[in-house]
Amino acid sequence: MNVSNNGGTLYGLGVGPGDPELITLKARRILGSVPVIAYPAPEQGDSLSRAIAAAHVPDGLIEIAIRTPMTPGNFPADDVYDRYASEIALHLKENRDVAVLCEGDPFLYGSFMYIFARLAGEYSFEVVPGVSSLGAVAAVAGRPLVSRNQVLTVLPAPLDEKELERRLADTDAAAIMKVGRHLQKVKRVLSRLGLDEGAEYVERASMTDEKVLPLAEAPDGGAPYFSMILVRRAEEVEA
Amino acid sequence: MNVSNNGGTLYGLGVGPGDPELITLKARRILGSVPVIAYPAPEQGDSLSRAIAAAHVPDGLIEIAIRTPMTPGNFPADDVYDRYASEIALHLKENRDVAVLCEGDPFLYGSFMYIFARLAGEYSFEVVPGVSSLGAVAAVAGRPLVSRNQVLTVLPAPLDEKELERRLADTDAAAIMKVGRHLQKVKRVLSRLGLDEGAEYVERASMTDEKVLPLAEAPDGGAPYFSMILVRRAEEVEA
Repeated sequence: MNVSNNGGTLYGLGVGPGDPELITLKARRILGSVPVIAYPAPEQGDSLSRAIAAAHVPDGLIEIAIRTPMTPGNFPADDVYDRYASEIALHLKENRDVAVLCEGDPFLYGSFMYIFARLAGEYSFEVVPGVSSLGAVAAVAGRPLVSRNQVLTVLPAPLDEKELERRLADTDAAAIMKVGRHLQKVKRVLSRLGLDEGAEYVERASMTDEKVLPLAEAPDGGAPYFSMILVRRAEEVEA
Repeated sequence: MNVSNNGGTLYGLGVGPGDPELITLKARRILGSVPVIAYPAPEQGDSLSRAIAAAHVPDGLIEIAIRTPMTPGNFPADDVYDRYASEIALHLKENRDVAVLCEGDPFLYGSFMYIFARLAGEYSFEVVPGVSSLGAVAAVAGRPLVSRNQVLTVLPAPLDEKELERRLADTDAAAIMKVGRHLQKVKRVLSRLGLDEGAEYVERASMTDEKVLPLAEAPDGGAPYFSMILVRRAEEVEA
């Protein structure tokens, strides 16, 4: 979207769920053409989206690690994103395109939207959709998310227990995201609803250390942030 | 997933939402390696998923067009899929891998699941997730689907008007799929709920003839099957 004739373009670049081969041709092309990339990273250590894209990042790019505290359940303070948005804006002002790498899809719970919200009004932007964790989880679990006229509810596990229960009681299928330390709460809710038996637990879908387990065999404690639970009501897809 | 040491592998290959550049490296690699491809197609005319993948389909492959009536709201009869599944199985039995091309993601309302349901128990299979229309629509509309701990409801427009209204009244964000001839019904519901103003209508996201319009400017009659409406409650993503 071109909102200005001046300045570089801000790209939100979906790099897919983890397997480097699940990057799109378009994301790869843009990685080969921009002078600046930025990516979310923990306060210490490596960025997952940077690692996914590694094979396609040319040497010598300017790189901005958007380091934020990864405290589950808390969202980083506005001032952190204000600062990184300003740093990115400096490049855009100088007509340098900046690609912000995003795990999965940029607009499905992606942190890219905090940068986007701060810069999209002033600079040209383009969002390149990526393979989302939703599709990856269903693929590795070998089960359709939804078919025909079924309703799919995408729920963040940090929601209140009562709210989770209410919503899970009233949908054909659900994908519960951001499971992390909420795993035991989600297990309780699904068990009360009688939905635990058919539920599947997936950790790090499409990555080399992915795990796919019936929910009953999921860990006893917490789960990694990149874990998801798939739930389906009763009937399988009619063949 | 390997369920058998005999026979070829059945691939469900997501080829993305329409832009041929939104295909993944993995889908492209598999297209270059299989002797047989299959793809959904109308009774007359060309297959969209075959067209999306065209640049990566080598000459001389065996091709199976899965031709089904595209009557909106009706799902093809079982015997049609029985027949195509048998045709595909003949190749798998002869140790020929078969890739079934799927628009978007194979497991999000994809017709691949009808083939999958018939063959996955007997043959090895692998599902390659693709960029879904959900991500593509959000990208071209330039608006996040959901952020933080918001709930996303994915709703097929053919649902009953009351049911649509009940679900749209109770979610943070919604993607209404398969709009087609249900456009006016969806407009009525969103208007009653006061959700029409912020809603966006997107036709053929990521294709060369895509359209992105505020819902108020959507067509007066029906819409193409590949159209979607994005709905968000009140507040934008907080910056």
